[in-house]
Amino acid sequence: MLNFRNLPAVPFLLCVPASLALLEGTKLDPNLVSAAHAESQQATAQPVPTGAREVPARSIPVPNTVSPQMQAIIAQPLNSSWNVVPTTVEEWKARVEKAALGVMAELPHLREALGVTVVPSAIGGVKVFLVTPKAIPARNRDRVLLHLHGGVRVYNPGEAGTREAILLSGFGGFKVISVDYRMPPDFPFPAALDDAVAVHREMLKTTKAKNIGVFGTSAGGSLVLTTMLRAKMEHLALPGAIAPSTPTADLTKTGDSLFTNEMVDNVLVSQDGFIRATILLYANGHDLKDPLLSPIYGDMHGFPPTILTSGTRDLYLSNTVRVHRKLRAAGVEAVLQVFEGQAHGQYNRDITAPETKEYNDEIARFFDLHLGR
Amino acid sequence: MLNFRNLPAVPFLLCVPASLALLEGTKLDPNLVSAAHAESQQATAQPVPTGAREVPARSIPVPNTVSPQMQAIIAQPLNSSWNVVPTTVEEWKARVEKAALGVMAELPHLREALGVTVVPSAIGGVKVFLVTPKAIPARNRDRVLLHLHGGVRVYNPGEAGTREAILLSGFGGFKVISVDYRMPPDFPFPAALDDAVAVHREMLKTTKAKNIGVFGTSAGGSLVLTTMLRAKMEHLALPGAIAPSTPTADLTKTGDSLFTNEMVDNVLVSQDGFIRATILLYANGHDLKDPLLSPIYGDMHGFPPTILTSGTRDLYLSNTVRVHRKLRAAGVEAVLQVFEGQAHGQYNRDITAPETKEYNDEIARFFDLHLGR
Repeated sequence: MLNFRNLPAVPFLLCVPASLALLEGTKLDPNLVSAAHAESQQATAQPVPTGAREVPARSIPVPNTVSPQMQAIIAQPLNSSWNVVPTTVEEWKARVEKAALGVMAELPHLREALGVTVVPSAIGGVKVFLVTPKAIPARNRDRVLLHLHGGVRVYNPGEAGTREAILLSGFGGFKVISVDYRMPPDFPFPAALDDAVAVHREMLKTTKAKNIGVFGTSAGGSLVLTTMLRAKMEHLALPGAIAPSTPTADLTKTGDSLFTNEMVDNVLVSQDGFIRATILLYANGHDLKDPLLSPIYGDMHGFPPTILTSGTRDLYLSNTVRVHRKLRAAGVEAVLQVFEGQAHGQYNRDITAPETKEYNDEIARFFDLHLGR
Repeated sequence: MLNFRNLPAVPFLLCVPASLALLEGTKLDPNLVSAAHAESQQATAQPVPTGAREVPARSIPVPNTVSPQMQAIIAQPLNSSWNVVPTTVEEWKARVEKAALGVMAELPHLREALGVTVVPSAIGGVKVFLVTPKAIPARNRDRVLLHLHGGVRVYNPGEAGTREAILLSGFGGFKVISVDYRMPPDFPFPAALDDAVAVHREMLKTTKAKNIGVFGTSAGGSLVLTTMLRAKMEHLALPGAIAPSTPTADLTKTGDSLFTNEMVDNVLVSQDGFIRATILLYANGHDLKDPLLSPIYGDMHGFPPTILTSGTRDLYLSNTVRVHRKLRAAGVEAVLQVFEGQAHGQYNRDITAPETKEYNDEIARFFDLHLGR
């Protein structure tokens, strides 16, 4: 054992010249890496900052630190419909239906490529899809995942909601129950949450809680978290692990990346415009800070082990890291992964991209580590 | 156990209308959350993207999702000296000395507040500081941390380099050896690395490798990683765990947040200007992609368990998450924490801020989990 007292002492000059006495009491920048910052502030007597950062217009290149597939996805222009807001129920439904057809067109190929079958069913009175991989490893035989799809609270009804479940089922070798929860405009909050909790409650009758993993992306990630809050309120057993990816855990425009990554994230672009409209449609007059709408304001003590995912260009990066910090502060085993250069959910966009395999493999590994058998 | 075959089957319509045949072969956006994106791309026949994101000028408010202390730090204006580059050895030394005095002025208060003593010494011919907390918990008695300070490769000579060591020693109850490694302009690469490795080699004579933790921020975080690469090359035993925080692991201007967080990170501002000058001064003509300069290009297989830290406004967020992904791909137990709204190293800036305690507590906990006793 190295003993400090056995080491040679050399002269120690506490170099604090008289001129520095002037600095005492001032707020020096104490960061090791920002001595230059402190220096500049001493030198120029900066005015009290207004705080807002004025960032000039910039051209940000496509990063070369991701796969070619991901570069193509990041290179896409901003989603031009981000500020186009439906004004009638019919317009909402037409938009949702059109989008669903786009997603569904890809599904046969995904099911085939990943060797996954999808069968519609119902559990606890709620429509679901049963997603089954060709081969189920022995360790996963008594495990079932509960999937809550994303789609800004309005998209991906029916089969369109199964895409992410197909990927994790295929990459991870898990049986998945994907919940076709009710959505606005017909069924606003708390219909989706009611459906998610109803399926979980029903699953507990046949599956050990520890053998259940719950996952979802974006609005689905937030629904994973609110399902835990409701399960706690109803004294239901919590699952063995959860994977809320880039959860929209705060429906108020709160979280720094909602500003720093505005107009940088080409998927969501901004929380204003269309997304804001989906929030109000879903909340249906409820307080947006209700923890069952914005789980960041909920009590996360006792949550199961959690793996969170985001990307450096993700509008919801801050929501994701805020949930991570909050879980850690509550003593929950929670891990975070952030994908380089990628906007909202892009890591899961292309099954041929190494990032997509990596994302699903990491979640599968985390579930394998924490779920019962 | 829930058996899929026992569940009721309901009609399953694979809804793929004829019009969708037109879409086959096109690159649909398959993201669950971005159905709107797919929709807009179908509708408007976007041109092939140039890729670069044109981001308009913006005013980004100070986040209200961090402590008041951290809000004040984030509200500071951009470091105005980011583009002021010394042109002579004398100018370099004057700048370094002035900055060091600014950092050192804070140290007596930090040592007092955290109950830490700092004594200069030498190990293996290298100048170090022995940093000792008032009380050492029993579990830490046979553990020693090796600290490699930050400061963009040129700052924080002598006692100024001990700030971060004082914090982790005080918050975590660890003995720390803080290396006063040689720096440019007098001693460019690989002097700093030689010194770090020499101290590690010497420590191995008195301390079990598993009982050593190595940590550092920024240039120090990168030095933690290059020390591991060199230790592997020299067949030295690796430590029990490492904590490279916001490592400048790629000295080329590579990594997306070097662009997205340019002019957003008020500590570093940009990798051009002064930082670029420190890189060239340090590298002294060596290839910047040499893994011992830019460890992201090194082989990280066999690295010890690693905890990485960054902030959402950090210029080196991408470098940090790239190291995390690379370590995970190499099968290393690696965890990531990202602090909300914070620029380079800001989470460790104010010992009264909850973020600073949280940062140090998380690293202490990680070391406690992985180091031998």
